[in-house]
Amino acid sequence: MLQTSLSSHGHKVVLADWARTIQPSMLQRLLPIMTRPEVISFALGFPAIELFPLEKYRQALQSITLANSSTLQYGPASLQLKQHIRALMQQRGVTCREEQIFLTVGAQQGISLLTRLFLNPGGSVLAEEITYTGLLQIVAPYQPHILAVPTDSTSGIDLDALEAMLSADARPAFLYIVVDGHNPLGVSLSLEKRQRLVNLLNTYQVPAIEDDPYGLLFYEGTALPPLRALDDRFVYYIGSFSKILAPALRVGWIVVPESIMPQLSAAKEAMDLDCSTFAQHAIASFLADAPLTEHLIRLRQVYKERRDSMHQALQRAFTPEEARWCVPGNGLFIWVEFPEGINTSALLETALMQEQVAYVPGQSFSPIPDHSIATRSVRLSFSCTPSECIEEGIARLAQAIRRQRRSA
Amino acid sequence: MLQTSLSSHGHKVVLADWARTIQPSMLQRLLPIMTRPEVISFALGFPAIELFPLEKYRQALQSITLANSSTLQYGPASLQLKQHIRALMQQRGVTCREEQIFLTVGAQQGISLLTRLFLNPGGSVLAEEITYTGLLQIVAPYQPHILAVPTDSTSGIDLDALEAMLSADARPAFLYIVVDGHNPLGVSLSLEKRQRLVNLLNTYQVPAIEDDPYGLLFYEGTALPPLRALDDRFVYYIGSFSKILAPALRVGWIVVPESIMPQLSAAKEAMDLDCSTFAQHAIASFLADAPLTEHLIRLRQVYKERRDSMHQALQRAFTPEEARWCVPGNGLFIWVEFPEGINTSALLETALMQEQVAYVPGQSFSPIPDHSIATRSVRLSFSCTPSECIEEGIARLAQAIRRQRRSA
Repeated sequence: MLQTSLSSHGHKVVLADWARTIQPSMLQRLLPIMTRPEVISFALGFPAIELFPLEKYRQALQSITLANSSTLQYGPASLQLKQHIRALMQQRGVTCREEQIFLTVGAQQGISLLTRLFLNPGGSVLAEEITYTGLLQIVAPYQPHILAVPTDSTSGIDLDALEAMLSADARPAFLYIVVDGHNPLGVSLSLEKRQRLVNLLNTYQVPAIEDDPYGLLFYEGTALPPLRALDDRFVYYIGSFSKILAPALRVGWIVVPESIMPQLSAAKEAMDLDCSTFAQHAIASFLADAPLTEHLIRLRQVYKERRDSMHQALQRAFTPEEARWCVPGNGLFIWVEFPEGINTSALLETALMQEQVAYVPGQSFSPIPDHSIATRSVRLSFSCTPSECIEEGIARLAQAIRRQRRSA
Repeated sequence: MLQTSLSSHGHKVVLADWARTIQPSMLQRLLPIMTRPEVISFALGFPAIELFPLEKYRQALQSITLANSSTLQYGPASLQLKQHIRALMQQRGVTCREEQIFLTVGAQQGISLLTRLFLNPGGSVLAEEITYTGLLQIVAPYQPHILAVPTDSTSGIDLDALEAMLSADARPAFLYIVVDGHNPLGVSLSLEKRQRLVNLLNTYQVPAIEDDPYGLLFYEGTALPPLRALDDRFVYYIGSFSKILAPALRVGWIVVPESIMPQLSAAKEAMDLDCSTFAQHAIASFLADAPLTEHLIRLRQVYKERRDSMHQALQRAFTPEEARWCVPGNGLFIWVEFPEGINTSALLETALMQEQVAYVPGQSFSPIPDHSIATRSVRLSFSCTPSECIEEGIARLAQAIRRQRRSA
């Protein structure tokens, strides 16, 4: 293998292949500008900070720090916390036992761990043509083949295309999928597509990593069941408290067949030993005193309002010929597609500097270079912006788009 | 590649190669017995729970939870915490800037991240014949070649052997090393060996992952400088609060050349996004109010006392022909070697069930099957056991060893 290298004081240290492709990205370069107070940012998929239940969490912390020192030691996973997670999973229509729940430091680690469990170096991974960037980062060191499945923001993953790939003898280590409030497309799969997808997984014996950070953030009455509610053999489910409670707790979970617990434990131990005993007990204590039900109602109410504000602002700012989008039933994102000729990556710096509005360019979410739809799309997050600022932010975005169309 | 598989309800999910070799280990099987109250356990390398500064940590938590919600959000690394770490590094004789410090959820993640940065699938790793098991778990999914260097508990890694391997054109991705309070051997390298090792790294342009959980836990007056104090180009240093403050904080750090920060950030983001903002601010607040100096003095005092108790108990329990060990200047472990004919793995179950004493068999720490020294050795941790119980525990161990010798 050719050894290119990283020079430091004239000395050379050789990095792994994937790491040598890493350059500080345009997004990283622009991040300090995105967070300036004068910028209206739809870029980051953060939960709304003003909705964190700070006072109740403070009480929970007091009750556990008054208890004893064992919350600061290494320790086994909290059964009490697993019982709360089991109850949350029931709200998602998933029946599972505590023995099938594995704690992680968040959904991202859940994907990392399951990738480690399924993927050999040089293996294949099934993902959508437009997918969560975190997945692509996770699999990179394995030098995998990405088998990219067509998808869209109206109905999600193209199951005809998936079936064609599987029947043509694709042998993926796993399929990665978000079925509710897709990041970045916003789409949720119909019940029929969920059922057909689960049938395909069973027929071709392909495991799915079902990443479900937004399943409990639904805005149209009730939620559809996740894949895991329809199948407990090929679906490996990932949940997290980051979006429904607070990210800095760094606690998520995986629901898996009990038989793979030894392998999952070995992978977790290798990665970072264990999850913070303190954080586990803090969340368990919080949930014992204040079940999430009311908090989730409040989150859904506020996020629905912001989603609607963004939809209405988009309607006011763009004609149907100038932009198209769907109103998502779950999650934090609206995906907006602009006509051919618009390049949202090229536009970002201008949008930021001249219009003071931030978004993530669609191309950031595709493993396919110059993807025909992604290059002319943006992901807009409505979660962190009060309704009154959303209107103004979308007007600025429209201004930036028109500027590019005029100069084209 | 042959596909063996994991059956679940008659359906098959194929795990990655490394995961298929994982069986619940003897240690995992025996862990519930090891933690029974009647067992005196020298098995786990945990810090002493009664030394956690619970009251001061409680005050630190109150001051940050009263502050604002941003401690519960995703966030950039705390500069304040990095400043405290910089000061701690100065205590270790290491001069570095905040820009060279990268936060992790603990030392184990530090090793995982640097492995990801340096190791390609199928690459080579330099490690001692007796080394930290966590390293072997971390590298397993890369299917690496382990280049095993002879070592011993008297003077540590054999640098003649290392030089011979490097000059014979070994091309390792990195060398993994603990220079103070080696886990499991207990040994600390002499200053001369540190200097020669750093020269070898420079000559052969091999990076070292220097894992330093025990550098501040020294028991003989002053500490020697870590490798990073002697070289800032090929030494990648890993520190942690787990052993000097409390494990459940889950915060550690890496000191690296600033030039690899983009790659390291990408690796961390892929693995688990970020470190808990809350934990970072909690530790920074704790350190602002109560610098570690006094706490470290107390830790050294108690651990030295326990180390000496174990040494004296070993002297009382064994003749020089029956066992040999060195008194470690750092860390939590004494490595005891027994004569040929003793098999400490085979002995463990009896020791536990009949004598009610626990240890980790030496073979657990070697990538070489049936390693001639490791098979007849044990790692004893003195950190968690009060002196009065250490005496009794070592007497039980001696009883178990004699039982095996008689039956041999």
